[in-house]
This record gives sequence, C-alpha cells and structure tokens, in this order.
Amino acid sequence: MYIKEFSEGLRISENLLVTQVIKGVSNSGQNYLTIGFQDKSGRIDGKIWDINDHDYHLFQTGEVLNVVADVLDYRGQLQLKVISVRPMTIGQYNLEDLTISSKIPLETLKERLQAFIDGIKDKEIHRLVSELMTRHYDKFVLYPAASRNHHEYVSGLLEHTLSMANLAKMVASNYEDIDTDLLIAGVLLHDVGKTIELSGPIATKYTVAGKLIGHISLMSAEVLKVAEEIGIEGEVPILLTHMVLSHHGKMEFGSPVVPMIKEAIILSMIDDLDAKIKMVEKALDETEVGGFSQRLWALDNNVLYKPSKRD
Amino acid sequence: MYIKEFSEGLRISENLLVTQVIKGVSNSGQNYLTIGFQDKSGRIDGKIWDINDHDYHLFQTGEVLNVVADVLDYRGQLQLKVISVRPMTIGQYNLEDLTISSKIPLETLKERLQAFIDGIKDKEIHRLVSELMTRHYDKFVLYPAASRNHHEYVSGLLEHTLSMANLAKMVASNYEDIDTDLLIAGVLLHDVGKTIELSGPIATKYTVAGKLIGHISLMSAEVLKVAEEIGIEGEVPILLTHMVLSHHGKMEFGSPVVPMIKEAIILSMIDDLDAKIKMVEKALDETEVGGFSQRLWALDNNVLYKPSKRD
Amino acid sequence: MYIKEFSEGLRISENLLVTQVIKGVSNSGQNYLTIGFQDKSGRIDGKIWDINDHDYHLFQTGEVLNVVADVLDYRGQLQLKVISVRPMTIGQYNLEDLTISSKIPLETLKERLQAFIDGIKDKEIHRLVSELMTRHYDKFVLYPAASRNHHEYVSGLLEHTLSMANLAKMVASNYEDIDTDLLIAGVLLHDVGKTIELSGPIATKYTVAGKLIGHISLMSAEVLKVAEEIGIEGEVPILLTHMVLSHHGKMEFGSPVVPMIKEAIILSMIDDLDAKIKMVEKALDETEVGGFSQRLWALDNNVLYKPSKRD
Amino acid sequence: MYIKEFSEGLRISENLLVTQVIKGVSNSGQNYLTIGFQDKSGRIDGKIWDINDHDYHLFQTGEVLNVVADVLDYRGQLQLKVISVRPMTIGQYNLEDLTISSKIPLETLKERLQAFIDGIKDKEIHRLVSELMTRHYDKFVLYPAASRNHHEYVSGLLEHTLSMANLAKMVASNYEDIDTDLLIAGVLLHDVGKTIELSGPIATKYTVAGKLIGHISLMSAEVLKVAEEIGIEGEVPILLTHMVLSHHGKMEFGSPVVPMIKEAIILSMIDDLDAKIKMVEKALDETEVGGFSQRLWALDNNVLYKPSKRD
Amino acid sequence: MYIKEFSEGLRISENLLVTQVIKGVSNSGQNYLTIGFQDKSGRIDGKIWDINDHDYHLFQTGEVLNVVADVLDYRGQLQLKVISVRPMTIGQYNLEDLTISSKIPLETLKERLQAFIDGIKDKEIHRLVSELMTRHYDKFVLYPAASRNHHEYVSGLLEHTLSMANLAKMVASNYEDIDTDLLIAGVLLHDVGKTIELSGPIATKYTVAGKLIGHISLMSAEVLKVAEEIGIEGEVPILLTHMVLSHHGKMEFGSPVVPMIKEAIILSMIDDLDAKIKMVEKALDETEVGGFSQRLWALDNNVLYKPSKRD
Amino acid sequence: MYIKEFSEGLRISENLLVTQVIKGVSNSGQNYLTIGFQDKSGRIDGKIWDINDHDYHLFQTGEVLNVVADVLDYRGQLQLKVISVRPMTIGQYNLEDLTISSKIPLETLKERLQAFIDGIKDKEIHRLVSELMTRHYDKFVLYPAASRNHHEYVSGLLEHTLSMANLAKMVASNYEDIDTDLLIAGVLLHDVGKTIELSGPIATKYTVAGKLIGHISLMSAEVLKVAEEIGIEGEVPILLTHMVLSHHGKMEFGSPVVPMIKEAIILSMIDDLDAKIKMVEKALDETEVGGFSQRLWALDNNVLYKPSKRD
Repeated sequence: MYIKEFSEGLRISENLLVTQVIKGVSNSGQNYLTIGFQDKSGRIDGKIWDINDHDYHLFQTGEVLNVVADVLDYRGQLQLKVISVRPMTIGQYNLEDLTISSKIPLETLKERLQAFIDGIKDKEIHRLVSELMTRHYDKFVLYPAASRNHHEYVSGLLEHTLSMANLAKMVASNYEDIDTDLLIAGVLLHDVGKTIELSGPIATKYTVAGKLIGHISLMSAEVLKVAEEIGIEGEVPILLTHMVLSHHGKMEFGSPVVPMIKEAIILSMIDDLDAKIKMVEKALDETEVGGFSQRLWALDNNVLYKPSKRD
Repeated sequence: MYIKEFSEGLRISENLLVTQVIKGVSNSGQNYLTIGFQDKSGRIDGKIWDINDHDYHLFQTGEVLNVVADVLDYRGQLQLKVISVRPMTIGQYNLEDLTISSKIPLETLKERLQAFIDGIKDKEIHRLVSELMTRHYDKFVLYPAASRNHHEYVSGLLEHTLSMANLAKMVASNYEDIDTDLLIAGVLLHDVGKTIELSGPIATKYTVAGKLIGHISLMSAEVLKVAEEIGIEGEVPILLTHMVLSHHGKMEFGSPVVPMIKEAIILSMIDDLDAKIKMVEKALDETEVGGFSQRLWALDNNVLYKPSKRD
Repeated sequence: MYIKEFSEGLRISENLLVTQVIKGVSNSGQNYLTIGFQDKSGRIDGKIWDINDHDYHLFQTGEVLNVVADVLDYRGQLQLKVISVRPMTIGQYNLEDLTISSKIPLETLKERLQAFIDGIKDKEIHRLVSELMTRHYDKFVLYPAASRNHHEYVSGLLEHTLSMANLAKMVASNYEDIDTDLLIAGVLLHDVGKTIELSGPIATKYTVAGKLIGHISLMSAEVLKVAEEIGIEGEVPILLTHMVLSHHGKMEFGSPVVPMIKEAIILSMIDDLDAKIKMVEKALDETEVGGFSQRLWALDNNVLYKPSKRD
Repeated sequence: MYIKEFSEGLRISENLLVTQVIKGVSNSGQNYLTIGFQDKSGRIDGKIWDINDHDYHLFQTGEVLNVVADVLDYRGQLQLKVISVRPMTIGQYNLEDLTISSKIPLETLKERLQAFIDGIKDKEIHRLVSELMTRHYDKFVLYPAASRNHHEYVSGLLEHTLSMANLAKMVASNYEDIDTDLLIAGVLLHDVGKTIELSGPIATKYTVAGKLIGHISLMSAEVLKVAEEIGIEGEVPILLTHMVLSHHGKMEFGSPVVPMIKEAIILSMIDDLDAKIKMVEKALDETEVGGFSQRLWALDNNVLYKPSKRD
Repeated sequence: MYIKEFSEGLRISENLLVTQVIKGVSNSGQNYLTIGFQDKSGRIDGKIWDINDHDYHLFQTGEVLNVVADVLDYRGQLQLKVISVRPMTIGQYNLEDLTISSKIPLETLKERLQAFIDGIKDKEIHRLVSELMTRHYDKFVLYPAASRNHHEYVSGLLEHTLSMANLAKMVASNYEDIDTDLLIAGVLLHDVGKTIELSGPIATKYTVAGKLIGHISLMSAEVLKVAEEIGIEGEVPILLTHMVLSHHGKMEFGSPVVPMIKEAIILSMIDDLDAKIKMVEKALDETEVGGFSQRLWALDNNVLYKPSKRD
Repeated sequence: MYIKEFSEGLRISENLLVTQVIKGVSNSGQNYLTIGFQDKSGRIDGKIWDINDHDYHLFQTGEVLNVVADVLDYRGQLQLKVISVRPMTIGQYNLEDLTISSKIPLETLKERLQAFIDGIKDKEIHRLVSELMTRHYDKFVLYPAASRNHHEYVSGLLEHTLSMANLAKMVASNYEDIDTDLLIAGVLLHDVGKTIELSGPIATKYTVAGKLIGHISLMSAEVLKVAEEIGIEGEVPILLTHMVLSHHGKMEFGSPVVPMIKEAIILSMIDDLDAKIKMVEKALDETEVGGFSQRLWALDNNVLYKPSKRD
C-alpha cells in the first residue's frame, strides 16, 4: 500500500525512504524521534517513542526501512506511530517505488527540452545555451526545483523549466517584437544554478555554496565564464547573465539587479506564475470542496478557497 | 502632416484636438498656456505666450484648432511654440484623424469579444456575462483602459481585455483543472467598471464616482445587482465578484480582498503582465537602441535597456 | 455557577454552550478534543481525553451540554479538564444564560438607534438610511461586530455603531462645517455588511461571501443598489458609498479607496478609536494592577501597562 | 486692503510683514528675491526683479514694508510682482494687523485653559501641571502649534491644546474607567515643548535644540526634572512623561516609546484627529465645490473632494 | 561541576541560582514548573513535574537551591529534569560562583573607564561627563547591557561601553576633523540610562520606568538636568543630549531623532557594530564548524555559517 | 585661478574640462546648454545661451576648453554664465590640473595596497587576492569608487579600499577570533568589480554591463573563475565570493545574499561606515558653522548640523 492510500486507524507494514530525522524529548522527559518518510506516492511524518541509543543508527536520511506503524490523525494530518522498523538492503526494494518524480516520463521531458534548444535560431545564443546545457545536463534533468514549496521532486526542475518555456512561447506569440530566442534561452538557463545550490534529487537540502552564494550568482558566473571560454562576446552574454540575475524580479527577493529588458521582465513574471499555480494546485489538493486551505506562507500568508463543482 | 512626423525646426499648420489646458505665469511675470494637443498619430505639448484675456476661451478641452506653430526640442522632447490658432467647426475636420485608437479595427475586436463570450459553456456564467456586456456594451467597446500609462486610447479597454483573454486561454491550456469559463468571464468583466470610472474615450479623465468609488467597487456592485435581477444565486456571482474585487492582486493596490481562488490569482497576474508589456513597449518606442529609458514610475521607478539588434 | 466565577481546583457541573470543536492527538498518540465553551458570563476552553468514536457526535458547535469538569490553570489561563458530559435539550436550559450580550438592554440600544436615524435632517440621506436599516434590521440589532477582537457578542455591532455615533456627534460639535447628517449616516451604515459577512450572533464565523467579498464591498453594493431602487441619484449615494468603502482608512487595511471627504476621514478615525478602546479595556481586564498585558496583535503587537490606582 | 482681498490684476500698496527671504538667479542670469509676506488675513509670496546690492538689506525676516506691487496668478496661486518698497518703523503700523492669530480671543483661550487646569482633581497631577504651566505660560499662550501644516499662527498651540482637551473630555464621557485627570493633564502638557522647539510666534522656525532634541524629548525631560524639584515621586511623573513621549503614536513618527496606557493611546489618537481635521479644513478652504484639492503631503499624499452643497 | 560541563545522561547535584519561574500544566493536566537556573559558567532551563502547592514557595527568582537533576537533551539543547531541591542560605554558597560576569576583571574595566574620562580635553565636556559618571557610577560598573541578546552579564554594560570607546578612538584616528572629545563622551554616556531601565545586575528585567520611558529618554533628561545644575550652557549639553537620543540610528528603532552630527552618526554605527559582533560570537559559540546557526532574531532573522578552520 | 577660488561677480578666463553636456530650451523658447566643468580643485556648472547649431560640436564630454564667463550665485551655488569658449588641444593644458584626484599621492596608495596584500598569511587567500589584483591592477588604482556620492575622483576606489582596510585591521584587533586574512581579502576585493561597472577615471558613467549586471555580480563571477583557473578549491573561493556578494548588507541594497559569516558582516558595516563618513565630510564642507546642510539622499534624506567650534 502506498502512503497516499493510508487512512486513520490502519496498521501498515511498508518499505519507506527516510528523508529527515529529528531527535526530541517530550515534556515528560521521554526520548523520541520524528522521522520524515516517503514513497513514490507522497510523504508522511512518523513518531517513534522510547527509542534506545543503539537504535538511533537505524534512522539515517537516505535509508530504506520496512516500517510497521499505526496511522493516526494528528491535527488534521495523518501521522505514523512507529511500532518497529527493519533496515532493507538494495535488492529488497525498488528505488523507483520510493522516490517522487514528475508525472511526465523523463524521456518526454528530455525530448521537449531538446526541441526548445533546437528552436533557438540565433547562433550565438544557441551555442551558449547548448554548451551550458551539456555541461550541466545530468543533474539538470534529475534535480527538483526546490527542497519544498513547488516542483520539489525528481525532475521537478526540468518540468518547471519546460512549463515556463511553453508559457514563454505563448506570451511571445501574443505580442510583437519579443525576442523569442533570448526569452527561451533565459527560461532554460535561469534555474540551472540549482544543480549546484541543492544537494541532489532525493532528500534535497542546500549545499554550503548554495546558501552562501545562491543559484542566481552561481549560474550568472557560469554564463560569463563559459561565454568567455567558447569565445562569445558582446551583448549576448551580458543579456543572458542579466536575465539569470534578475529573474526573482525584485532586489528584496534576491535578484541583485531588477529586470531591465523586456524579455527579463517576462521571464520573472512567468517564473512567478508557474510557481504560484503549482503551489495553489498543491494546496487545493489538500483542501475539501467548499472549504478554505491553510495559510500559505509563499502566497503572502493568504488562504485559498476551493469552489464547489458546478454541474 | 501628423504629429508623429513633426521634427525640430519645422513650422507646422495643422488641425489638432485640445486635450488639456493649464494656465501659467513665467518667472518674469508673463502669462502663458500649456496646451495638450493630439491627432491620431500621437500627442504633443504646446506653449503659447503673451495671451490676451479674450483669447483664453479659444482653448477648451475637446475643441479642434488649426494651429500654426514652431516645433522645438525641450529637454529631449518635441514641443510646439504656438504662433496663432483658428477654431475649426464640425465639417472642417475629420474626427477620426484626431483621435488615437487601437490599431486593430473595431469590428475585429468586437468579433473576438463575441467569440470569447460565446465560448463560455457554463450556462449561469454565460447568462451573467452576456447580460453585463449588453448593458455596458456601447461604452465598453470604445473606452480606453486608462487615462495614461497603458492602452490609453479609443477601444484600449477592449484591446487590453482581449489580449488578456488570449493569455488566459493559453495559460489554462498549460495546466490541468483550471476553470476556463470562470477565468475568461473574470477577464471579460474585470475592468468594465472603467466605463463608469472614466469620462469617455477622448480627453479622458476620472469622474467623481470614479475617484470616490473606483472601477473595482463600481463593477463588483454591478455584478451582484445584475445577478440578483436575473435570478442567478449561489457561488457563481460570489466567485465573479471576487475576481473583479481581487484583480489588483494586493490590498495596497486597491483590491479590498486578495485573490483566494486559483482563477483569480491567474487573472491578477495576467492583468499585470499585459499592462507591463504594453508600458514597456511604449517606453522602448521612445528609447534609442543601446540606450536606457527614462525612469518608469509604474515599473517601480526602474529604467529599461533597449538591446542592440543582432544579425 | 457562571464561568466568570470558576477558579483553579474546583470541580464544576454546569450547562455550557459549545462554540468550537477541534480534534487532536497528543504526542503520545492519545485522541482528545479541545472544546470552546461559553455561558453569558464569558468563555473557557476545555480538553477531553481518550474520547471514543461514538462520543464525537455529542460535541457539535451550537449544542448545549451539562459538563462535569475540573478547573485547571494552563499557562496562566483557566481551562476545563472534562470528566463527563450530558446533552441538554431545549427546555432544560435558558438560552439567555448561555449567550454573551451587550450589557446595555436591547430595547435601549434600539431606541438610541432610532433617535440617530430620526435626527438626520437631509431628506435623501434619511430616506436611504431608513430603507437600508429596515432591510437589514433584524440581523443588524443582534449580530456581533466581529468574531473576536472587539464587540464580539450579541448586539455588539449595534453597540459599537451607537458608541461611534455618540463620538461622531461630539466631534461634529467641536468643529465648524462638519456635515453631521452625512457623518451619522456613514457611521450607521459602515458595518451593516457584517450581517452578510458573518454567520450569525452565536458561534460566529465568516461566511463564504464574507471571506471572498467582505463586508465593505457587500455593503457598498447594497447602498448603490438600494439608492437606485428607491430613486435617489446624484452625490448622496456616491458620498455614502465612499464612506462605507473608505472606513478602514488605508488600502492595506482593505479599503479600496482612502477617505477623500472630511466626514469619511472622521468616520475612519472614530471607528479606529472605538475599536481600540474596547480592545484595550478587554486586555486590561485580564491584567493585574501594576503589570503588563500580553502582546496585543491588533495593537501593533504592543503590550499595555495597567497603572496603580491613585488615592 | 488685506491679502485675503487681493485679486489678479490689482496694483496694491500695503504694509506687509516679511516672513521669508530667498535669493535667486533666473535662467537668464537675472538676480531676484522671493519674499514671503503676511498680514493678519493670510500669506502671499512676492517676486522682486533686478535688485541692486544696496537694496538687499531692506528685505529682512521680521521687517515691515510698505509694498507697491501687481497681483499676478502664478500656477493657480496669487503672487506679488513687487515694484517698490519702503521700510516702515514702529508707530507707522499696527502689529496686530500683520500677524495671524487664533480667531478666538486670547482671553477666552486663557480662561478655558485655566478651567481645564482647575478641573484636575488629583492633587499630585494638579500640582505638577500647574507648576509646568506656570513656568512656560508666557510662551505657551502665544506660540503656534507648528511652523506650517496646522495651527501655524499666534496662539495656535493653545487653540490646538484646548480643542484636544474638549475632545478628551467628550471621549472620556463615552467610556467607563478612563482616568480623566491623567488624560487632560497629558493633553495640556504634550506639546509644551514646542515653546523650546520653535523660535517664536512670528516668522516661526526651528531652533537648534528644537531640531537636535525635539519637543517630545525637551518636554519629557522637563516633566521629570520639575517633578523631582517639587517632590512628586511614584507613578505620576512616569505616566505623564510616558504620555508626552508616546503622543506621536508610533516610533517612526518620532515617539521613542509607543503608547502603553489607555490614556496615552487616546491622547495620540485625538492629537491626530484634531490636526487632521484642521489640515482638511485648510485644504478645503482652497478647493472649489465639486472639485478635488492638491495632494496633501501630511495626509499620505492623498487628495480631498469638496462635496456640492445639498439644499 | 559547572553548568558548562553538564552533558546528556548525567545526574547532577549542584548549587544553582534561580533566575526565572514559569508555571505550566501539561496536555494531560499535570502541573509543572519551568525554572531558569544559572551559575557563573552559563544558564540552563529545568522542568519539575507533579509539584505540590506547598513546594511552589521554594522556587523564587533570586533564590539559591541545591538541585538534584538528570541532564536531558531537549530539541538539541540540554535541560534539567529536576528530582529534588534544597534551599541554601547565605554562607552555604559563594555568590561569585553563581553570577555571570565580564571575563575582564572589574578593576581593569574601571581603570580603562577612568582613562577615557581623563582623556577628554574639553573642560565643559569633561566636567559634565565626570559629574554624570559620578552620579551613576555604582550601578554603571555592575549592570548588564541588556537582559538578553548581548553583554547580558554583570558589568556587561561597562564592557560594551569600553569596547565601543576603543573603536571610537580608532575610527577617529582614521579620519580628519572628528571631535574625539564629543565622540568619546557620547560613547561613555549613551547607555547609562540602562541603570534606570533595568532592575539590576542579576536576574535582570525591565523596570516600569524602563518600559514606559526607556533608557534613551531617561538619560537624555539626566544630561539636560545635570548640565543645568552644574551651570553648563550652550551647545555642549545639546550635542551630548542629541548623541544619547539618536544612538539607535533610526526612529523605528526608538531614537526620537536621527543622528544629525558626524559624531552621532559614528556613535550609532559603532554601537551597532559592537553589539552585532558580540551576538555573532555568541551564536557561533553554539554552532559546529561547517554548520549553520539557528535564525537570529536580532540579525534580521538570518542564519550564520561557521567556516571550517584552514591549516 | 582654480574653480575653488571663483567668487560671485568675477569674470574668469580659464582652461576647464567638460564632464557633462545637457541641451535645453527655456520657457521663452531660447536654446541653451548646461555644461559640467571641472578642474583639479572642484566642479562647477555653466550655462551658455543662444547657442548656434555650428557651436554645439565644441561642447563634448572629455574636451578641454578655455572658458570666458561671469560667476553668478544661483540658488546658493556658484554658476558660470559662459560668454565665449575656445577649444584647447593637448599641449595647451596640463591634464593633471584638470582632474580631481585623491589627496594622497598615488605611489603612497600603491605601497599601502601592497603592504596589505603582503600581510595576508594564508597561502590560498594570498595567491587568489594577488592574482585578482594583478589582473585588474591598472584600472583598480585609478578608478573612482562611484560616479558621485563619495570617493568620486581619480583613485577614489583605492583610497576607499585602503581606508576600509585600516578600519578592518583596527576592528579585528578589538575582538578575538576574527579571521583577519579573510577580512582584509574581502575588503581588497569587494569593489574591484567597479573597474568593469564604471567607464573610467574621468567623466565617469555606468557601462551597459555595469547597469545590467553590476559590480557585485561581475566581481563574484571573477573570483569563482580565477579560483578555478589557478586551482584553488574548497571553502576559500566560496567564502570570498560570499563576502563580495553580501557586502551591501541587505538584499534590498543589491546583495543577492545577506552576510552569513562574521567577517562578511564586519565588511559590510565598515563599507557603510567609510562611505557615510566621506559623504558627511563632503556635506559639512558645504555647510556653514552653526547651520544645517541640504537633505542628503544617501543618508535617508536627513540633514546634518555643523556644530560651532569650541575654544
């Protein structure tokens, strides 16, 4: 049974991936652990009580455990009360069953990416984008777009990038005089720095360089360096670096410069649009029809309403 | 010759529409008038010096004058130094030559509007949108979207609405589970209140109700009233009123509620996107290649860069 | 014994109204409920542990229960540890003993309201206010002004409105040239929309229209509609709508327009004054002499000091 | 003829008080002076052109001149074009004709002040307020409340204080448990520091201590010092100092502490109310019926509307 | 054994000073106390469960107890689970073992202070600073700089003041034309008001005057009063008062005026610098090499990174 | 005669460097130019009237002209009214007489820079700083720190850097455990990107890369690239890049990350301190004793007071 199918009152026994381990002591002085578990269907927190010192080593981020537990409802969210665990070794489980991925097959995503790269007509832009993509390809197609909030799963970064590229193409078609090559290039490159900022596709956290430098500055340095190495000068590297740098839209959101070219303004707006829609979809998934969601920190702490279905 | 063709040093003699009249006295105690002129190609300010009291009445907003003037460069912008004027009566000029309109023919715009209305499948939404459109049709198809900033010309409101409807359809196609009927209805209705807020398609200013109540509240009241009159109850009028009310996205921008449904969030974001792109286009029109624009108040006071053309 | 008289260590057995029910699971996996109880003297939270599934139905918002419980001190606030409950049916209790009302008798409040309406000399304003009052009278005289914060009890809305009307009259008497009719009318109408925004006088929460549209826009639509229906045109409906819309004083507080007439500025300031004084009274009630209150979210998160009594 | 009666096109010859002198050079290199003139009816700016070096000394703040000048309309405001001036000596003019004062006779204001002081029942508060009033009386009854914005005329400070004291009494009567003695004392003392902050009743500007320390800190130090000198200890001096310090309501408005007692909250709100109403009255005085005022910096840069008179 | 040496799993029995007592009731209705303990090496929280009413009196802020307890790890921080306590009387413990002090001997700090005072060459400034120091000396040399955040220990105020005086002297040496006497005087006096704002060197909290008036206004009043008493007039008291008032740098941080003289600007910046460095040192003390600290409220809620040691 | 010696009423005839040219038309339709002139003693604006088209070419940024002009006082600032100009060719003037430079000889500045580089003990940091300095040396020692505000003259960037390095060393000496090598390296590198951001040492403006990318991102990319090229890995390049990126202290000031290591916090604070002191010195230079400066945009729009000299 997958996590998505768990319901209050069940006793489950399943292979689960450990994504987080937090030690605690209860008010009454009891030791316990809060464990983040996941399988391919979703995530669930668990609590394990009265844990012995020699059992701590079983719970490590990245391990796979066979977990026997009761499913409880804790403040409106399901939670596991862990009864026992047994470590599983490779071969005893199928990693694909335990990781959350984009719903779109990776091959499809890769083909779409290639189509967007191939569609860039300007030779310099095409060459620079191709080179940067080649250098970061392996990680770029597998990383999540974030450690939480939106697209926080395997290949989420690629899925987010392609959704934005679709929007970019549509927006460009609605106006005259948009430099589609520049816009698409900016979309494809804007978040590639996340492959350095984040630790990996599973149990994702920030690297030291990720926190101290950030994906925006890591990627803008990369664009300037690679342009120099492959001999592209003039405005193209400046414009693409500007798009990477400015894509958070405002300085207080971590962009050291605000968007000053039309395509950079569009890039920052469709990035915001795609991320917001994904966060809204996720929040409404957990909201009942005719009800209001929890407050969403990433949406200015507002709540969402889920309308009734009309006939 | 049209205003767009004026250049420094010319003496012109043309029929022009008066859109604004401001009295002034120079440092040296001289009376003068600053006049806003327009024809179908654009706008230009003029100065007239040493004006007699009995000439003031010639200069009235909405009048058409035959103007003889010298074209000067004043701080980087062309300006008229008016030498003499002669009032023109209807028949002596063609009003279409003097008003700025959407570049798209009105009939085309009207057909596109009808297509969007016809495309709404939900019966209640369709009936409510149709009724509201019918009641405000004559003004809605002619008014500008604003007195300045963006789409500030005849049928600008309709053009802005249709551009947003295009974007809405595209965005809806990029995601699952967007209620397209609701989204399109929200787009079509969101700014209809401007037909009450603004004075008319030419020499546009705010009405008293426009300033004291505002298009957002005027239209939300209209949606609730008409729904009641034609007997539509339940969530549909609430949701559409919510979309009208929340389309400025934040309370500090004049929306009394923030968007709380997915379609309202999308509406406010594509409204912002379409307006920003139009303002950027306008600012770049007046910027030379490789140069920076003036600071743009409506874009957080930032400047824009106009990239060089690539081969 | 009334809630106000409960003290730590007592075992009580009283009829109480259920105003809120929240399910929980303790750290140790135990099911429990947090119940909001009230009688006419005040409110108290209770906890009930190890609840069986077939007992959940006993706890419903709006039910009256005979509760046996121990009174505990939990973080400086009294709380009930519920031992057993018995459902009471109508006839077994007196609803007036269980609801919190304005301390002023309802008849007195109604008379004062009528006097203010009668005092309006301008015929159009009088007619519009009378009509709106008549249409919303039954709810207006019973609803609270809010679900919490201030005047959060039966007829609290009316009490708040009349306190403001008193202040309005006094302020008008201190200055020349204040339009008292307009000011009093604005005071009487400004919060009538709360009769649509809130669910009712007891166990009050927000309705869907209340959250998605809000009392400000609901009432401004009502003013415009009713003025149209009874044939009042010109500035009066615009000015009254403006007063309703702007009474929160700033756009970031949910007013789509800021106050632009003198009477609207005064209205928003005395609304703020009356609400603040009520919140301060309530916070000081729970503070000991010579001590500081808790931080008050609605007062910019500040604390209050309760001075010692002087001889 | 008084300034209030000047109209465009007149040549006037009147005694006027000089309140401000600013040197200038025109674009064409011409020397000129901008002079602030006033008489008891109001204020007007004047320009004098082609001034000789030996004439500069005639124009000194505080001097009275007989001015011959033409009245012009400069950007919607009347202005003097000065033709000649003649210095007047004491005896040649009546100072009362040249200074703007409260419309209420000084004796009346003084009596009202005394009545408020006499009405304080608490002995310590009465003694402290009396002593502070005695020490600052001469200046307190003549100073303006500000150099501009509101109550910016002789005895304006006293008039503002008494208007607030009236409001304070009214507000106190509308609620239970307000410490009227404390509130009235706070009102009377809150702005006394302006007698040190400002230079005097005529041609008022800030003193160095006024700018570097400010009336809030100057007066709070005075309250603490005088209480110590006359032997009042305990909470009374602390509470009154707190009311003086916190009367701007927020730290960003220059109060080093926010109001933390009920009476201090009321004090800061009625200070704001009285000042705002006065600024609104002043702005509407200069606005035509059915029109909008200039933007008012002190009212969050908003405009005001002046409604049409109803029958 | 000192608190700094406690580790998880130990059972300790030590004399500890009680600095804070908070009553609580657990979810399951159990009474408990949270006690703040300290000795000269640091601070630790403790919990005591199932406490009887007649034991409450043992736990009073300022008491010394012999505590038997188990050391637990609670959410990453050590905590005591108290088993039993025994009250200790003077003579049974050494107060110096129980209070946290500056690491620099008090005599050294006092000598450094005297040297800075002696170094002031301007006679008026020297006389005013000496007088103020003499009046507040006993408390000034023992008080902490704050109840928490930074320099929150015995003589912390003096240590902070001297560290700033060192910085002031260095900064003055790096530029021309800095008035060192004024700057050093401002540094020495700026926080003396904390001797009135805070309750004392041990178990420090805010006094009523401290909260309602604050150290900034208390000290500025003191400077003005003492200058008057010892007959110093002119700019010196104004400038020093200004430095005290403005040392928080911005109005929103509680300074009623912003720094307007060069030395006041420098004072506010080195105050900020010294406090920030101390807070950073403290946070990094509790962070492991190569790791990130908790979010620091006083540093805009940011985290800190503790770099690895280089060879 | 140098610009610093000009006084009102003089007719001058001097060689001056043109730093800015702005075309204008007066209210009365007259063409004129506003020219920025400078020599080594300072800057002055000039106006030239009734200019012929064939004279425009004489006025080019970077040209040296012999200027005959009258010195006027325009709104409290001296200004030239240009009578005639004569273009000068190289050889007819001495460029050193026409450019403003640091008052410290360039050789002295270079020696101090070398001493700071030599003082870095950590081998990796020393190698990376040396390499970066070598690559940018020629521009780094000549560029200004800004186009205006502070250190806006030849070698101003180097002077600012060295003043900060002095402060850094002093601050490090006042605390334990500051990594002086890292701090000094951060100081030396933090603004090197200005050599790409700005156009050059004379008539300085922003380059396109300067505006679209900015000195912060240009230099952080350079640090990462050069570290890679010379084979330095691990934390050193990350920490130095972090210091460059975070030196504006806050995201809203253009730093994409806030300072997260102790040395980065100190760097951003002494950068702020040195710049502020320089701006204050400059503003006070133009203020009379006992008077207040103009509002300073870069100091939160505050004014400064220049105290009287004490004996």
